[in-house]
Parts: sequence; C-alpha cells; structure tokens
Amino acid sequence: MLLMIPGPVQLHDRIIRAMARQMIGHRTREFSEILEYCTEVLKELFGTKHDVFIISGSGTAGLESAISCFSNVKRITCIDNGKFGDRLGKIAERYTEVDVVKFEWGRSIEIDEVERSLAEGSDAIAFVHNETSTGILNPAKEIAKIAKEYDALVFMDAITSVGGDYVEMDDWGVDVAVVGSQKCIGAPPGLCAVAVSERAWEFYNERCPFYLDLEAYRKKLNDLQTPYTPAIPLFFALHEALKIIEEEGIENRIRRHRELSEFVRRWVVESGLELFPELNEFSKYSNTVTAIKMPRGVSDGELRGEMRKFGILISGGQEHLKGKIFRVGVMGNVTFRDVLTTLSCLERILVKRGVVKPVLSGLI
Amino acid sequence: MLLMIPGPVQLHDRIIRAMARQMIGHRTREFSEILEYCTEVLKELFGTKHDVFIISGSGTAGLESAISCFSNVKRITCIDNGKFGDRLGKIAERYTEVDVVKFEWGRSIEIDEVERSLAEGSDAIAFVHNETSTGILNPAKEIAKIAKEYDALVFMDAITSVGGDYVEMDDWGVDVAVVGSQKCIGAPPGLCAVAVSERAWEFYNERCPFYLDLEAYRKKLNDLQTPYTPAIPLFFALHEALKIIEEEGIENRIRRHRELSEFVRRWVVESGLELFPELNEFSKYSNTVTAIKMPRGVSDGELRGEMRKFGILISGGQEHLKGKIFRVGVMGNVTFRDVLTTLSCLERILVKRGVVKPVLSGLI
Repeated sequence: MLLMIPGPVQLHDRIIRAMARQMIGHRTREFSEILEYCTEVLKELFGTKHDVFIISGSGTAGLESAISCFSNVKRITCIDNGKFGDRLGKIAERYTEVDVVKFEWGRSIEIDEVERSLAEGSDAIAFVHNETSTGILNPAKEIAKIAKEYDALVFMDAITSVGGDYVEMDDWGVDVAVVGSQKCIGAPPGLCAVAVSERAWEFYNERCPFYLDLEAYRKKLNDLQTPYTPAIPLFFALHEALKIIEEEGIENRIRRHRELSEFVRRWVVESGLELFPELNEFSKYSNTVTAIKMPRGVSDGELRGEMRKFGILISGGQEHLKGKIFRVGVMGNVTFRDVLTTLSCLERILVKRGVVKPVLSGLI
Repeated sequence: MLLMIPGPVQLHDRIIRAMARQMIGHRTREFSEILEYCTEVLKELFGTKHDVFIISGSGTAGLESAISCFSNVKRITCIDNGKFGDRLGKIAERYTEVDVVKFEWGRSIEIDEVERSLAEGSDAIAFVHNETSTGILNPAKEIAKIAKEYDALVFMDAITSVGGDYVEMDDWGVDVAVVGSQKCIGAPPGLCAVAVSERAWEFYNERCPFYLDLEAYRKKLNDLQTPYTPAIPLFFALHEALKIIEEEGIENRIRRHRELSEFVRRWVVESGLELFPELNEFSKYSNTVTAIKMPRGVSDGELRGEMRKFGILISGGQEHLKGKIFRVGVMGNVTFRDVLTTLSCLERILVKRGVVKPVLSGLI
C-alpha cells in the first residue's frame, strides 16, 4: 500500500534495511555515535544551536515533554485551529492554566485575537506550525514575534514541518519545538525530538512526568546516552533517514516538498475541486499535506475505499471534519511518481462520477 | 556482538526480518489485527483475563503509566532492594505520598517490614518482581498476599519476568503489572505493556500524563487502535516475538530460562566465584539474570573489556555496585550455545588470572 497520508510515511528502502539488523547495547560507543549524529542533524533541521533531545515515543509524547517540563508559567495561550491545536490545549491543561484561542477548523489564525489573549495575562503560548488536520501552515514567525512583545515563552508543534519546510527556531524566537520521526524526516514512527532554548530552562518544572523529564535527558546526553532504554531499531532508521536528508540537502528537500504540494494544489483547483483552508494575510497552504473538500455525490468511504483498491492510502477528515474533507500527504522521501500515481487514481475515480474534469495529463 | 546483558536482548532472525518491511497505516485493519494478537498473547503471559495496553515507550514509560494512572491513593509503599525498586519510588513520588521500604541492594525483602509500612497507612504497594540490578526474584505472591490483608492496590514491575518466568497476576492478586519488549519477550526495545485489573480503575487519576493515560488507550482499544501513532516496526517485531513464544510454548520457555540460569549459577559456584544475592526464605535467584561478585584482582573494565574482545557484551553493576559485581543476562530467545560461549570466555579470562578453576567442560 502506498502511504499518501500525513504520516506514517512510506519508507525509503535504505531506511527499511537500516532496521534489519541485530540489536546493540545502548550503553556502547556505537549507540552514542548514532545518538550524536541524529542530535546534530536535528539541530540543523530545527534551526537551533541549542539542545535537542530524542525521546522514544510518538510526537504526542514529545509535545507533553515540552509543555510539562517548562510549565512553570502562569498561563499558556493555546491556539486551536485544528485537531492538533486542540490537542496542545488538552495536554497543557494537565499542567497549568490554559487560555484556548479557538478558530473554526480550516480557518486561519487571527494575530489580533492571539495578542488579546497574551495581553490578558499569558506568559506562554503554544501553537501548531503545520496543522495537518486542515492543511494550513500557521504563521510561526508572526506568532513568535507578537509573543516576544509580551515576553512569553513560545512552544511550537513542528511535528509535521521539520524536515519538509523552513523551521528557524532561533531566528524566529521559538523556545521549545517538537518533531515526530514519521513525517517529513521520513523515518518510521516511534521517536520524537524536543528542541529547547536556553531561556526555556527558566520555566523548568520538576513535577513533569518522570519519563518525559528533559533534565534527565540533558544529563545523560553529556555522556551521549539516553536516560532510559531507547528504541534501538528506530534509532538505526532515524540515523539513515537523516543521512538521506543530508545527502539530498535541506534546501532541496524543502523545495521538493513545496513543488510537489503545489502540484497537488494545482491539480485540485484545475480539476474543479476546492481546497479546504481559508487563508488570510498571515497563513499559507501547508507544503506537506493538502486538505480538499469532499465533492458532492462522493462519500469518504467510497473515495478512500476505491483508492485502497488501487493500493493507495489517503486520509479522511478527523473528528467533525470526517466525511467533509480528504487529505493527501506529501512528506518525507515521497517522489513525483508517487504524487502522480495518487492524483491519477483520484482523477479516475472522480471523473467517473462526473465531479472533476480530467486535467492531470495537461499539467505534467 | 552477542548481547548477554539483561536487555536489550539478541534478536531471533525472524524478528529482525519482521521489522524489515514497508510501513502500514496505523488506522487499518492490518494494524488492528497485529494489535489484537499482541494484546491477547500478552494477557496469557501476564496471567490475566483483564486489560492489557501496549504503549510506544520504554519500560519506564510503562511503570509511570501504571503508577500515575492509578495514583488516587493515600500513600504507596515502594519496596527498594535494587535500582529498579528505587526507580519505582522516584516515579511514584511525582504523583502521591510514598513510603520507601529500603533494603540494602542485593539483600532480600523482609515481609515483616513491608507489612509494617502497610499497617502504618499505605493503601497501595509497588515492587519489582525480578530485580535485574541484583539478580533477585522477589516474592511476588507473598507481597501480594500481605497487601491483600490491608486491601492495598498492588503494582508489580514485571519488566524482566514476563515471558521468562511465571507471572500469574490474577491468581496472585496483582492489580497492575508492566512488561518491557526487549527482555524475556525477546523483541527489540521501545514498547511496553501495562496489565490492569478491574479494581485498579477505582483508583484512576485523570491527572496522569496525557501520553500515558490508559483511559485513552482503553477507549481506542475498543476499535483495536492506539490513541497516538504507534511505533509500527516495533509492533511488527513484537508480533513475531510473540508468535515465537506461542510456538515454543510458555511452559517450555520458562523452563529454558530456568535451566539456562541454573547452569550459569552452577558454573559460578563450582568455579569458585560467588553469587551476589543474599537470599532469605521468600526470595529466589533470578531466572533471567545472574549477578556475580567481581573476584579480587580483576577490574570491571578488564573483565568486560576482554569479553567485548571476544564479541560478547555482559553488564557491570549499576550505581554504587559498579565494579563490585558483574551480570549475565539470560533472556528471550537465548540458547544453550550462547550461554556456553559466554561462560567459556569468562572462564578463559578468569582462569588466566588465577581467580577461578576451569570447571565448565565438566559441567556440560
């Protein structure tokens, strides 16, 4: 099955082979070298000179580690314009007071409303950079800028942007950011990484979960180790995935993600379908996932079911968007051929039902 | 390198190959079937008819999930007679009041002292079944029995016993138990499982960490899914590891662990080395790891360094036991040949230094 969902992504052959090996001890030089290499490349991808910690757990574990470890704040503004923004709020409320600034899913963030929440007494803010549930790239730089005016600590869910789009934590003034392994980095799921500015440690809360306590990770990283047994096969895979990224070059990789996603969007618009996101002057379409309104006369079950018959997995909408949108992920080591195959099949299914025009061959 | 450490263990070829495949979607029937199979076999290994939840994270994540989710208790007695007992206390103190009942590492648990702590006002107890830091099998059944007299909730760290020794949660009256994937189950590290009695839910604390909240796992398991993206390659591996266990038969597997560990202990004693644990009427030697006193005139660095030259990894002591003991793990799909190879090399190194007698060939 070709995975064209917003993670887990299709693995490069080299990454599959990297996992197919015997275990090693995790307190050995060999493991330390892998950990060191991964940490250094991830710093580049996050755009930070500061700490990066790799945790054996999903992206959600990384987000909780980030928020809980630096939860010594009075109140955190959580921006919710999609499922993952909503999740940030749910995680944060276990640790501190939360003010959720909510926008209808699919709509863009209004900076004024964010500022109002900050002005009302938040000393921290959390937002999703690339909201895969709706296909929107939220304005990270602008949010961090306004947060700076209020001296607020900035948390960014960069789970689906790091490795596929520009992330410049230090330049933008983001204090804590999180990435997942199974998205634009192109590795299998099961690891996440948290990048932490120096300033964030002023907000360190020792009552964070034991397993997610970055202070323990920091201490052990001095010996190039992890505090608890790491998921070794996933480290083998991440190591190879990051080597592939270095070989491709980060700029080239981001360009590829952008061009492929632009191609998907061009097909959507020209074929007569509608993109789901409502943009404003700050937001952009995601360059790693495209959310498309479900055309009338086709059900989610039919569309995705027929795609599965073609051997391709795409995503539906989440929560109340189920049945209203479908989503095509373009993440990791995805190729033009993968995108073309996907759109060909989509076009075939939708043309047959008379809901789109056949335009694909003219776009290539 | 042959891994003869108490986890991660050497992988069976079939398990290595099981990981070497393309990703699948985690919201698919294929993944659900894997999750269902793994959950059912784990129930057998835990000796429970109740819930088992698999978490993407190390054994420590599983312990924290167990304790934090059911931390609606007044006070928890944590038994510490080794590094992992100590860890239980450190995790528990983030969530509730803790009374640590401490024994010198390497000594056995005195049930009377445990009872005193319970009588003084604990309504929960946590202990390590198989303490790998010292090579002791703690008396799970006796601890659970005394806990029952005080109606206390019973947490058991079974990370290194499940799959290698008898664990009968329901029979013994253990409420919550945890296993790690990379120990006696024989899979790679990165997954853990938490088994939960019905009664434990009476102590459910909704303020547990979001990522480790078993209520979310319980809801999603109804649809045979996990709440967050699972570490898919590790599920492929666990699935294969559990198939191997089913093929071997649980009884046979436990017998193999016992016989191999007995063989290690016989060699230790006959060669003139000393076992580290001090047993009492309740405790036993671990059947999955053997802790041996470091003989005079040999340093930890020398012994383990020379073993590494032979291509074999064994463990040293942890924390203050560093340099005082060394440990040989016999876990998972380990064979008699692996044990023999290990003891041959140990004997060669130690005979050369004149600290043991060559007895191995006479024992085979």
